[in-house]
Amino acid sequence: MTFSEDQFVADLIALDRDGGALPEQIYHAVGDAVRTGRIPPEGALPSSRALARELGVSRNTVNAAYELLRADGIIAVRQGAAPRIGAGPEIERARSAPRVHAPRLSARGAHLAERRRQAMSDVGLLEPGAPVEDLFPADEWARCLRRVARRRYGAEAMYANVAGLQSLRVALAEHLQRWRGVVATPEQLIVVPSAQAALTLAALCLADPGDTALVESPGYWGARIAFAQAQLQLRALEVDADGADPDCAADANARLIYVTPSHQFPTGARMPLTRRMALLERARRSGAVILEDDYDSAFLWRGRTIAAMQGISAGAEVIYLGTASKSLLPGLRLAYMVVPEPLVEAFSQVQRHMGLRVNIHAQAALAEFIETGALTTHLRRIARTYEARGRLLVETLRLVLGDRVEVEMPMGGVQTVVTFRGAVDDEAVSLRMQKAGFNTPALSGYCIGEPRVGLIVGFAEATPDIAARFARTLAAAV
Amino acid sequence: MTFSEDQFVADLIALDRDGGALPEQIYHAVGDAVRTGRIPPEGALPSSRALARELGVSRNTVNAAYELLRADGIIAVRQGAAPRIGAGPEIERARSAPRVHAPRLSARGAHLAERRRQAMSDVGLLEPGAPVEDLFPADEWARCLRRVARRRYGAEAMYANVAGLQSLRVALAEHLQRWRGVVATPEQLIVVPSAQAALTLAALCLADPGDTALVESPGYWGARIAFAQAQLQLRALEVDADGADPDCAADANARLIYVTPSHQFPTGARMPLTRRMALLERARRSGAVILEDDYDSAFLWRGRTIAAMQGISAGAEVIYLGTASKSLLPGLRLAYMVVPEPLVEAFSQVQRHMGLRVNIHAQAALAEFIETGALTTHLRRIARTYEARGRLLVETLRLVLGDRVEVEMPMGGVQTVVTFRGAVDDEAVSLRMQKAGFNTPALSGYCIGEPRVGLIVGFAEATPDIAARFARTLAAAV
Repeated sequence: MTFSEDQFVADLIALDRDGGALPEQIYHAVGDAVRTGRIPPEGALPSSRALARELGVSRNTVNAAYELLRADGIIAVRQGAAPRIGAGPEIERARSAPRVHAPRLSARGAHLAERRRQAMSDVGLLEPGAPVEDLFPADEWARCLRRVARRRYGAEAMYANVAGLQSLRVALAEHLQRWRGVVATPEQLIVVPSAQAALTLAALCLADPGDTALVESPGYWGARIAFAQAQLQLRALEVDADGADPDCAADANARLIYVTPSHQFPTGARMPLTRRMALLERARRSGAVILEDDYDSAFLWRGRTIAAMQGISAGAEVIYLGTASKSLLPGLRLAYMVVPEPLVEAFSQVQRHMGLRVNIHAQAALAEFIETGALTTHLRRIARTYEARGRLLVETLRLVLGDRVEVEMPMGGVQTVVTFRGAVDDEAVSLRMQKAGFNTPALSGYCIGEPRVGLIVGFAEATPDIAARFARTLAAAV
Repeated sequence: MTFSEDQFVADLIALDRDGGALPEQIYHAVGDAVRTGRIPPEGALPSSRALARELGVSRNTVNAAYELLRADGIIAVRQGAAPRIGAGPEIERARSAPRVHAPRLSARGAHLAERRRQAMSDVGLLEPGAPVEDLFPADEWARCLRRVARRRYGAEAMYANVAGLQSLRVALAEHLQRWRGVVATPEQLIVVPSAQAALTLAALCLADPGDTALVESPGYWGARIAFAQAQLQLRALEVDADGADPDCAADANARLIYVTPSHQFPTGARMPLTRRMALLERARRSGAVILEDDYDSAFLWRGRTIAAMQGISAGAEVIYLGTASKSLLPGLRLAYMVVPEPLVEAFSQVQRHMGLRVNIHAQAALAEFIETGALTTHLRRIARTYEARGRLLVETLRLVLGDRVEVEMPMGGVQTVVTFRGAVDDEAVSLRMQKAGFNTPALSGYCIGEPRVGLIVGFAEATPDIAARFARTLAAAV
C-alpha cells in the first residue's frame, strides 16, 4: 500500500470532533506526517474531494487545510491535480547535507568546560559534603510546597527585577542574624541556585582576568572552579588546626579571599576570633572582599557561637554565603548570599542577565520553614543524627585501624578527614575505595599549596554496617 | 542595672532542660549576648559560682561553658577574678575601622552589570511577554508538587553531574517531538532556570569576545543582553512580514544566529519554510549555530504545524530553546535547551560550573504535567483565553482609534505590535502609557538596525475593561 492511496493518508489523520477546528487538525496531522516521513517526499496527496470523502468532512474543510499547508510550503497545489509534497524533498536534502564546519566550542567555551578536578564518580557511599536524602523532611516540605504553590505572588511571579522572593529575604535576614550573627537588611540578600552560582557572580563582578584570589588549601573545589573559570590566579591560604592562616601569600594583592571559617572544608577546623580579625583587617587594608562560605554551620553540634565574620565586619569586607544543600537537599538548588549594600544592585543585575534565579515555590517553602520554626526543629534533628554517625564512624575507624590512621571527632557537618601514619599514596587508596563503592576522595587533590595526604570521608550515611564495611575496606587498602 | 550584676546575665540565658547539653546552651547564649551588644564589651561576667547559683546548675557546668567561650576568644578568664569580655572591644574596633578601599566592581563586573535597556517599570498592565498568574493552574501544580516532593530521587537529588532530571528530559524529548517536530534524545536536553540562562551558556560556550552574533531587529532584549555580556558584536537580521530575513548582514561571519521563527518576538511574524531552509543553509556553510527560541509556540492557536527548525536541520546547526515562563509561570524558573550531541557534555559541564541548575521538584512536576497530559489540557485552555483576549484588544483598538493605528490579529502568544499612521515618537507615547499604568514599550527600543516605530502590547490581561481603558489612553497619547 502506498501513501498516495486515499485511505492511507486518511488513516494518518485522527480527527477529534471536540478538539478544535477541523481544518487545523488536518493541517497538523498531514504536516506532521510529511515531516516525520510517514508521507514520503516523492508522493502526492489525495485530492480534496477524495480526502473529504474518506474523512467524512466537507470538501471546504479539506481545502482550507490544504491552503494552510500550501502557505507553509508543505505541499504544492496544482490546478486540477492532486497536491504534491512541497517541502519534503527540501527537508530531506537539508537533513543529509554535510555541514561545512562541525559545531565547536569557542576558546572561551573550551576554557569554561575544562574538567577541573580528578574524575570522581558521581555516586558512591560516604561522599563528603552530601547529606542523606532519608533525613530530608519530605512530607513536611511537600505539604509546605502545596500550600505555597496555591498562593498568588503578583509581580514576583513574573519578571520583576528582584534578587529573591521578598518573604524569603526577610525571613533569612532575621534567621541569619539570630543564628549566625549576620547583620543584613533583607535587601542585601540575593537568592541563587547554589553556592556555585554565588561564587560565579562574585568572581565575575569583583575580579578581572589575571587578578588573584586566595583559597584555602586544602579547600573546596567549587570555589577553585568558579575562580578558574573567571580566569583568576589562585594562591593558597594554608589550613592548620585553626583553619586558614591569614598571613599566607602576604605579597598577593588579592581581590577575593575564599574561606570557610566556621567549619573548614574539608578539615573541620574552626578559625578563632584572632585570625578572623586579622583576615578582616587584611581585606580592609587591601580592598579585597572575603567570601565567607558558611555552608554547614546550621548544624554544627558545637561551636555555633563564633558569629559569622560578616557580623563582626564593618559591613563591606565580607560576602556571606549560605545554602540549603547541606541542611535540606542539594536538589532544591537553593542558596543565598549577603552582599554589601553598595554592590547589591550590580550583583542583582548580573544575576538577572545571566539567569541565575530560583524557583519561586522553593523560595516560598524555605521562607515558611524558617518562619514556622520547622527549619530549626529539622536542624536539631539532623545534627543529632549526624553527630551520632560521625562518632560511630570515627570510633569504628579507631577500633579497626588503630594507630594506622588519625581521625578527629567532627564537631559538625557531614565530613571529616582521615590521615595516615607513614607514607601513603592517597590517590591510590581513594581509587581502591572507589572500586569498593566509596566516594571518598584523596585529600591531596584538594590542595594547591603544600600537598596533604589523607581521605575525605562523609559520614551522613555512616550506619553501623556501612561504617564497619568502610573501616574493613580501608584497612585492606592502606 | 548593669550587665555585671549576676542576675542580669542569668536573665539572658534561657535554659532548656530538654534542649541539649547545658554548657553548650550557656555558651551560645552568652556568646550571642556579647556579639549583639547586650553584654557590653567593657564589662565582666559573673564568677562561675555566682552564675551557677543564679541558673540553678552546677559550677562545673558553668566552668565548661566559660572554657568554650574562652577558647573562642569571647571571654578572657583571669585567675581568681570574674571573666572579662575578650573579643568585644576588638569587634567594636573592627566594626568602626575605616576601609581603605571601598568594595568596587571589577571592569568586567561593571560591563556585566551595565543596564542595557531603557529603564522600564517592572510592573504595569499589558506587559509584553508576560502571561497572567490567574491562568496558572495553581491547584493542580500544587497537588503535583506535593506528590513529587514526597518521592526519593537518589543521586539526582544530590550532586550528580546531570543536566536535568532524567524523567523530565525523557518527557520533554517526546513532547517536543510530538508537538514541535524536535528530533532529540533525552540526553540532548539541558534544563536551565530560564531562556536567559540558556542564551548565556550558548554565548559563552560558542563565541569568543569580538565574535559576531546576528539578532532579529526588532527583537528580544534578552538575547541582546546575553550576547553583549559575552562581548559579542551584534548585527541585525531585519524582520518583515515573513520574520527575519536570512540574507541580511551577508558579510558577517557570525558564530551565533538568534531567531524566533515560529512566532517572531515581538511582531508575531512566522518564518516560512523557504527562509528557514535558507537560514539553515547559511549556518551549515559558515559554521554558525542557530539559537531557535521557541518561547511561546506551545500556545499558538494557528500555525503549529511548521515544525521547529531544529527538526528539519541536520542536527548540528540548531540549539532549540523552550521555556515554561510563557506556558505556565515565569516564577517557576524552568526552561530547557536541545543541544547538538557533540556539544552536550561541554554545555552541561559549564552549566554545573556556573550553578545554572533548577529545583528538582519543579522539574519533576513539569515531567508529570507532560506525562499525564495536564500540560496539553492547560495549553489548550490558555490558548482559548489568550486568543479571545488578543481579538478583543485588537478589535477595541480598531474601534476606538480607527485608522490612526494598525494592529495585526495575533496568531498566538501574549503580545502584538501596534503601529501608527504618520510620524509618532513612540518613546514618548510609551512613557505616557507608562504613567497611566501600562507597561507597553516602544518598538524602536527593540531595533538595532533600521528603527521601527510602534508599541509592543501584551494582551494576556486584556479583559474588556482593561482593553477599553488602554485604547482610550492610547487615543489621547498619540
